[in-house]
Amino acid sequence: MPNNSVITLFREILDDSSILSGESLKSRFYHIWKTDVQLESLCLLLPRSTDEVSAIVKICNDYNQEIIIHGGLTNLVGSTISNKNQVVISLEKMNKIVEIDENGKTITCESGAIIEDIINTVKDKDLLLPLNFGARGSAQIGGAVSTNAGGLRVFKYGMTRNLVMGIEAVLPDGTVISSLKKLMKDNSGYDLKQLFIGSEGTLGIVTKVVLRLYRLPKTRYTSLAATNNYQNVLDLFKTMENKISSNLTGFELLWTNTYSQMVSDKTLYNKYLPDNYKYYIFIEYMGGDFENDYNKFEEVVLESVDKGIIDDAVIGKDEKEQVNIWGIREDVAVLADEKEFDQHFDISIPVSLIGEVIDKISLELKECEGVKTIFPFGHVADGNIHFIIGKDSDDDKLKSEINEIIYSNTEKVDGSISAEHGIGLDKKKYLIKTRSQDEIELMRLIKKSIDPKNILNPGRVI
Amino acid sequence: MPNNSVITLFREILDDSSILSGESLKSRFYHIWKTDVQLESLCLLLPRSTDEVSAIVKICNDYNQEIIIHGGLTNLVGSTISNKNQVVISLEKMNKIVEIDENGKTITCESGAIIEDIINTVKDKDLLLPLNFGARGSAQIGGAVSTNAGGLRVFKYGMTRNLVMGIEAVLPDGTVISSLKKLMKDNSGYDLKQLFIGSEGTLGIVTKVVLRLYRLPKTRYTSLAATNNYQNVLDLFKTMENKISSNLTGFELLWTNTYSQMVSDKTLYNKYLPDNYKYYIFIEYMGGDFENDYNKFEEVVLESVDKGIIDDAVIGKDEKEQVNIWGIREDVAVLADEKEFDQHFDISIPVSLIGEVIDKISLELKECEGVKTIFPFGHVADGNIHFIIGKDSDDDKLKSEINEIIYSNTEKVDGSISAEHGIGLDKKKYLIKTRSQDEIELMRLIKKSIDPKNILNPGRVI
Repeated sequence: MPNNSVITLFREILDDSSILSGESLKSRFYHIWKTDVQLESLCLLLPRSTDEVSAIVKICNDYNQEIIIHGGLTNLVGSTISNKNQVVISLEKMNKIVEIDENGKTITCESGAIIEDIINTVKDKDLLLPLNFGARGSAQIGGAVSTNAGGLRVFKYGMTRNLVMGIEAVLPDGTVISSLKKLMKDNSGYDLKQLFIGSEGTLGIVTKVVLRLYRLPKTRYTSLAATNNYQNVLDLFKTMENKISSNLTGFELLWTNTYSQMVSDKTLYNKYLPDNYKYYIFIEYMGGDFENDYNKFEEVVLESVDKGIIDDAVIGKDEKEQVNIWGIREDVAVLADEKEFDQHFDISIPVSLIGEVIDKISLELKECEGVKTIFPFGHVADGNIHFIIGKDSDDDKLKSEINEIIYSNTEKVDGSISAEHGIGLDKKKYLIKTRSQDEIELMRLIKKSIDPKNILNPGRVI
Repeated sequence: MPNNSVITLFREILDDSSILSGESLKSRFYHIWKTDVQLESLCLLLPRSTDEVSAIVKICNDYNQEIIIHGGLTNLVGSTISNKNQVVISLEKMNKIVEIDENGKTITCESGAIIEDIINTVKDKDLLLPLNFGARGSAQIGGAVSTNAGGLRVFKYGMTRNLVMGIEAVLPDGTVISSLKKLMKDNSGYDLKQLFIGSEGTLGIVTKVVLRLYRLPKTRYTSLAATNNYQNVLDLFKTMENKISSNLTGFELLWTNTYSQMVSDKTLYNKYLPDNYKYYIFIEYMGGDFENDYNKFEEVVLESVDKGIIDDAVIGKDEKEQVNIWGIREDVAVLADEKEFDQHFDISIPVSLIGEVIDKISLELKECEGVKTIFPFGHVADGNIHFIIGKDSDDDKLKSEINEIIYSNTEKVDGSISAEHGIGLDKKKYLIKTRSQDEIELMRLIKKSIDPKNILNPGRVI
């Protein structure tokens, strides 16, 4: 059947406003940072229900029609790009919040719901969805689940995987797997939801999720500390864990280059500490005790200065100071002012080795002709370090050289080439540096069993 | 090839002491509570390395030889039973601790390591493996991973699944899938370890694991509180979460019958509170602040009494008192004195509905002729309630009647028939009460893809 006939079949199940093709595709794009690049697609479908998704997928499966899935389009590994023969399904109209269970601390919502909207909705009920990453204002929860998104609070609350209690997903043959139980513990057979979390839309289209929530902490304090020695970073981490244990919700790191850039004239952020230290640590404390939390946190920070674990520190007490301090850590767009020539990384390495590995990588990158800026930063408590590397050209050889330096050093310490962004299209050729051939074969076996015609997000991951 | 020839092949890869058959099987059993019932098996193999496991499994796969896997043999759903044609592989000799990374807070060990040994080993380094359940003194870590064991600290630390960072497993064709990375974040392709966690040994034999550890908390306090109203249990839970937030590590519940039995002359436990309340709540606080933690905890408990959320409470401050209080909650063997006629349950239901659902189940059970005692208790914070039901006979009709009462009421509120014990053989026929036909079909598809000859723990789960 020619492709256009598939559209005819879609018209039988969707109203006209839910099918964009030809001219009406002009305003659509494949990435939120590239709104000037028009989407290529046979058509873009905007289903409003799981039944509609199921019916669409069934037609595609019958006619070997490839499907690319769109969420908030903040994907960093090329997954959302499509060609003119592929059908794009966007979940954006399925954005309803279905239910909030205040006692059970769960929220059930459709995949298209924006993460920040969910955060704000549950906040009104004194509940916390701890997902916290830069793109939260546009990222959809279905995308976060499909890519197992990470972010700034993984150390304490885990990846998205840990927050998912239930999932509804449409398989490549149109079958709806619905397991929307609001249960923290469920050992009744294989935990099928794990198949859909982090498999980047290659095994099913997530249509609804049940998420675990937490009581909203009452207090939040932040400290920015500095030291010249990675062992001290580890010692400070250990001290914090021992003294404030579970109230430690964030422990992040900037290297000196990155800090300097973040407090330069390019930003409006206060330069709280001089920029001549090697490491800048961002510590977040969240608790429930208005009267004592601040004093407790301050005491531990001061003690760490007294003991020489850190050389200097400031504490952000009020909202304004905290926004300023966390801006230095989070507003990383400043590091990437020449977008076209940047390379972004999200490697994972054992926490104890971060100091030496990042030093080694930085040194090797410096010797690489064409590299202009090297900005490492990241989630040191959970071993995930990012790099934004600025270059003076988009040369392919240089790109490969940089990939090689970073991924080989990661491989040597049994790290991962992707802590949180995933593999998508962009990192496929490096997957072998982080997973064995047998592992990749097992992934292929699973993909083939569940999607024998290879219609869902084809070519991604494996 | 006749079965005995398989043994001949095993002799080529294992030394004699690692192959038990015939007479030498006499001292072996299939369940730790049934040491007087001799194991039925073609032979029992005791491999000492992953390579040996792989070689054994490869032979079995070549000759369509069924394998039953043994860990600590505390399984509660019949999974460890075997027949005289099946090969049993016990992981007991693979019990080495391979590495502890103190900075990274991980331990790598072989599957046969006893959980309590791991707990004690890491405790010496001021680290905590938060797995905590009754059978920890004999259960092996490989079994805990394969069954995704739960226990007393799931609310705070999650199931075993949440503690597993890396896995090495042998597939049914002998392939070794090794992913022993010490990483908290790894989105490089499908998260294959999830396949082996909680699939009850049907998709692979777990041979090694990397577990996430936590800093050992410095303080631990316990309170036993009582109330007559389930809404108060929920209010107390909310108060505790708001006031002591992450220091709340346990929140458990006994119903009046169960409490009475636990403080009767059958035990040595102190009757701290009179046994005329409906609900008894066990609260555990763990923290890092010697000076202030006790006062903080006491203040919240006293305030809850003052506000009428609870009617009475005691606080266990020293080790002796805490052992006594937690004994009342944990020493549930006392509830099962006529072992043969007991039925055990581990259902999961949404937290807010626990009060009414357990009342309804208890009422229906009381009207069931042949039921002698009804003891509900459990992990109320994570929705997992256990029942131990005593009967005056082992009648099959009565057994089915009881199952029907419990599982139908669970099904009605979208609960799970197994929160933590798994499905094994015993609960297979009830799986449909908790998972849809489409879900079960997807489980079968995965099993068939990975174990096409159905040799690994055949007949379990699905």
